Amino acid sequence: MNIKQYVFEKASKAKAASRQLANISTEIKNLSLFKMATELEKESAKLISENRKDLSDAEKKGLSKAMIDRLTLNHDRIKAMSNGLREVAALPDPVGEILKMWRRPNGMEVGRMRVPIGLIGIIYESRPNVTADTAALCLKSGNGVLLRGGSEAVHSNTAIAAILSKAGAGTGIPEGAVSFIENPNRDCVMEMLKLNQYIDLIIPRGGEGLIRMVSENSTIPIIKHDKGICHVYVDDKADLPMADEICFNAKVQRPGTCNAMETMLVHQEVARTFLPAILGRMKKAGVEIRGCNRTREIVSDIATATDRDWDTEYNDLILNVMTVTSMEEALEHITAHGSQHSEAIVTNSYQNALRFLREVDASAVFVNASTRLNDGFEFGLGAEIGISTTRIHARGPMGLEELTSTKFIVFGNGQIRK
Amino acid sequence: MNIKQYVFEKASKAKAASRQLANISTEIKNLSLFKMATELEKESAKLISENRKDLSDAEKKGLSKAMIDRLTLNHDRIKAMSNGLREVAALPDPVGEILKMWRRPNGMEVGRMRVPIGLIGIIYESRPNVTADTAALCLKSGNGVLLRGGSEAVHSNTAIAAILSKAGAGTGIPEGAVSFIENPNRDCVMEMLKLNQYIDLIIPRGGEGLIRMVSENSTIPIIKHDKGICHVYVDDKADLPMADEICFNAKVQRPGTCNAMETMLVHQEVARTFLPAILGRMKKAGVEIRGCNRTREIVSDIATATDRDWDTEYNDLILNVMTVTSMEEALEHITAHGSQHSEAIVTNSYQNALRFLREVDASAVFVNASTRLNDGFEFGLGAEIGISTTRIHARGPMGLEELTSTKFIVFGNGQIRK
Repeated sequence: MNIKQYVFEKASKAKAASRQLANISTEIKNLSLFKMATELEKESAKLISENRKDLSDAEKKGLSKAMIDRLTLNHDRIKAMSNGLREVAALPDPVGEILKMWRRPNGMEVGRMRVPIGLIGIIYESRPNVTADTAALCLKSGNGVLLRGGSEAVHSNTAIAAILSKAGAGTGIPEGAVSFIENPNRDCVMEMLKLNQYIDLIIPRGGEGLIRMVSENSTIPIIKHDKGICHVYVDDKADLPMADEICFNAKVQRPGTCNAMETMLVHQEVARTFLPAILGRMKKAGVEIRGCNRTREIVSDIATATDRDWDTEYNDLILNVMTVTSMEEALEHITAHGSQHSEAIVTNSYQNALRFLREVDASAVFVNASTRLNDGFEFGLGAEIGISTTRIHARGPMGLEELTSTKFIVFGNGQIRK
Repeated sequence: MNIKQYVFEKASKAKAASRQLANISTEIKNLSLFKMATELEKESAKLISENRKDLSDAEKKGLSKAMIDRLTLNHDRIKAMSNGLREVAALPDPVGEILKMWRRPNGMEVGRMRVPIGLIGIIYESRPNVTADTAALCLKSGNGVLLRGGSEAVHSNTAIAAILSKAGAGTGIPEGAVSFIENPNRDCVMEMLKLNQYIDLIIPRGGEGLIRMVSENSTIPIIKHDKGICHVYVDDKADLPMADEICFNAKVQRPGTCNAMETMLVHQEVARTFLPAILGRMKKAGVEIRGCNRTREIVSDIATATDRDWDTEYNDLILNVMTVTSMEEALEHITAHGSQHSEAIVTNSYQNALRFLREVDASAVFVNASTRLNDGFEFGLGAEIGISTTRIHARGPMGLEELTSTKFIVFGNGQIRK
């Protein structure tokens, strides 16, 4: 069977299954998630042995230590993965929720009901836990899922997907509703991206290269989880001890994430007071500092930030610092260099706080809080499938609700169009 | 200047303008809409003379009478167009609405605020009033708009767009926020569809060919307004006089629309009572009937529906009729042949009503009301940009709210990630 036909059949079967899944009860979906969790734990020896094959290939290919760490499965990680499934089971089912219902002058009642999107294609890299996490979120929201993991984790992903499918089928989930493309050939991805008659949404999760490839080739709507070039602006009216805590947290707490700060903008009125202490603290934590000229006049032993630095997502302990002469300059810098991901202001000025919230365009805008809080759990949405940087359908952390569509429902008693 | 550069510059300028437009007050937007309305009326002689050029080209090309009628501008139509602008001004501005706000355990308040999508590309055919209608909806929702009308209406569209742009600029709308691609070269559309760095959403409005071309070539998210193959199912528990009114309305009131009924499904228990009267009434209204064998046993003087007929959007006074043995058969037929647009059941059974609402997958599902009511005005959303058949972002009638995105906003007092 050629690649085209292989992917076509997977998708067509998954689509048919997703239609049935749309009307399956919450009880069955939850039962199935619990069963999947138990089975992953039961089969952990098998999972670890399959994972070893991926790890040995990775070593042969000379992948980085960080990559190998992300790829590794052990008992703790399998436990975390199955607990993730149980947490999704505990979340409320969004399907069937009626968002609002209103009465029209002709007496008909119109409302909007949440329904599954249909079949969702997930294209991801590296971490095998993504297989279980995303399958669980799609299943709970009534969507079929067609998973395509990176070739570097193919043995681990295949084993996880097989366990999930089997546990699902044993508990009343239509066969094919959780499908996985085992064939590591890259052409499979290209085929997936053209199947808009079956796949309703593509979510790419991975590096810039993957996301670019998917956006350029997909004829299916996609929701990107793209990079974050995030700023914290310390206003002249900031509470400086609070600014110190927020900036330190935004940079250092987990620098490899998309909502970590890359550039700190400091109003010149407070720069002399604020900068020496925070930059000293950052340096002690191992942060390399790159500053603008104004910043370097205040703190001399730092590198000069180049034009390119302001547009770089480091994902690392490196920080750009710019001293600005006004809030306008900060807003302009954010518009020019930000990636509309997570942006924060620290201020005690009512006007500046509201202006920042209104004018800054990002998936989440914070007053007096760390950009690191742009997260589904932190916002109270429950587990998230990622942080969308797309402006269409869902923006920011995507939980179960964002994995649904809606339909209008109408209760009439004979209304016709006049 | 070549096509690529021409479209690129239009889009880049429109995107810059859309960023400014996002923060412009409702007052200015409304003022501008009123000014546009007045100017269209003032310039109606000029519009009519430009429109004559399109009409004379259309006659030379031998376009159908229906096409020519749709293309025609006269004083009444210009008046209707400018009143449409005033109606949009009267609608509430969705931008800045905070959908919900909640407090997290750490004390931060999290909410969602409606913001414009950004720059919207509209690709449409024929009717010149679409230029004004869609520009108004985009403007009111704070979006820049890049319009591309069909070559058959290029003179009319160019004239309308010029009036709108000028009136906008004169009332504080950033230049370029309402942009129009005058060049009739088809390559312009292909260029537009690749400019995902500038255009955030593409809305194609037109025939199947246009929609297919756009879906196959766009790297920008699109919201389709696709065809409707809509059904009314007359249940064995239906109120038959009500079913008669609803079916007649769904077919005859305006057969050329996407929410008109193409196929009537009738439960066999009521077929003998129901069919002769309704089909007689339909025939009197000029409807051609094509029936299944069971239907033809009851009403003999009708044609046989072919396999192809069940999948055809007639947009005309033609109706398929199928007599079904059960509600299941009706549901299966709708799943197999419907286009997920507008579906209705007529019944007095509580169980069947709720089951139909739950199980039928369509942008709008009706109990005891005509499919023709699937419409923004009828649902109370105000003016609509069309009826989306896409499952992502907006499904069903798209009003001003559906032309917005959201951002999370957070009021903190020093919260950091732990």
